[in-house]
Amino acid sequence: MGGPEIERLIALLGKLPGLGPRSARRAALKLLQNPETRMLPLAAALSEAARAVRPCRECGNLDSCDPCAICVAPGRERKLVCVIEGVGDLWALERSGVYRGLYHVLGGTLSALDGIGPEDLNLAPLMARIAAGGVTEVILALGATVDGAATAHWLTEQLRPLGVAVSRLAQGVPIGGAIDVLDDGTLATALVARRPF
Amino acid sequence: MGGPEIERLIALLGKLPGLGPRSARRAALKLLQNPETRMLPLAAALSEAARAVRPCRECGNLDSCDPCAICVAPGRERKLVCVIEGVGDLWALERSGVYRGLYHVLGGTLSALDGIGPEDLNLAPLMARIAAGGVTEVILALGATVDGAATAHWLTEQLRPLGVAVSRLAQGVPIGGAIDVLDDGTLATALVARRPF
Repeated sequence: MGGPEIERLIALLGKLPGLGPRSARRAALKLLQNPETRMLPLAAALSEAARAVRPCRECGNLDSCDPCAICVAPGRERKLVCVIEGVGDLWALERSGVYRGLYHVLGGTLSALDGIGPEDLNLAPLMARIAAGGVTEVILALGATVDGAATAHWLTEQLRPLGVAVSRLAQGVPIGGAIDVLDDGTLATALVARRPF
Repeated sequence: MGGPEIERLIALLGKLPGLGPRSARRAALKLLQNPETRMLPLAAALSEAARAVRPCRECGNLDSCDPCAICVAPGRERKLVCVIEGVGDLWALERSGVYRGLYHVLGGTLSALDGIGPEDLNLAPLMARIAAGGVTEVILALGATVDGAATAHWLTEQLRPLGVAVSRLAQGVPIGGAIDVLDDGTLATALVARRPF
């Protein structure tokens, strides 16, 4: 349709989450029509990110400095560590702007089905950070899935003996959520966990 | 959130058609988590396409050879030229697999509103190709919009004196289209242009 270079570009763009074959063609065309302003800057940004970005050795966050900007930020509460599954969760929490502690990226959850055990998770730096002292509370912000709940349960067992408080995110009706479209599980949880008005 | 490299990558991905800020973040994360298998190959494909791909001097198609593979293909009917607005239209027609003639990419349509006149369109190579002889029919495959129709009308006036037949795509009920959800304009056109069964 326009040589192997275009075919290859479309194939690689089509592997990005959110882009199917059709939108990959549209994206490729947009890039091809603007080589200087779109295509080369994106190529440079990709190369530069691949060169610079590494997982933080302390918490597993992706950043161009190691330890990451959050781990070394003077304004963060160093006695709070929020455990999350992936860096996307960290980005979501940072966007919410309400959390000022540190993070720890597990890199997955325990999963019997997928054969993922504790040895496959990024646990050692978390245990080392707690053993070094100063951490008083670990907040488990794992997904409300079977694997997320199992991982939270297992982690709680590991962390309690170390003398830190372990908490997890509240479950209930999401802000803006209509009652009549909520799933039964969320509704039951929200009802049981009801709070005085 | 992870240094300027990540911010820049997300900003550039978010400018692609089909990707908003949210999906740009997901795409960036996917790339960052697979630097060797996803991010560097995409960077290389972009650089390579930017280096290799040029508009065909004959027809305006984007290809890594000039004249493009379609213009020099021995199997194509050289007496048919299909005029289209953009390279995306050429790709769509090639995917349909029914057209075996040549193409000419206008690079836009006339538009009084946007101030686009004949001098802004890629017309000279089309006129030169027709003047060189051998072309018997020009098929106008322009969008069924106000600007597309105006451009088709204007082009017809320019091409008729050159002694070539000018045709346009049939308009009517799209394949798989239900009658009751069709817009009035399409339905009226299909009714007027009805053909014996």
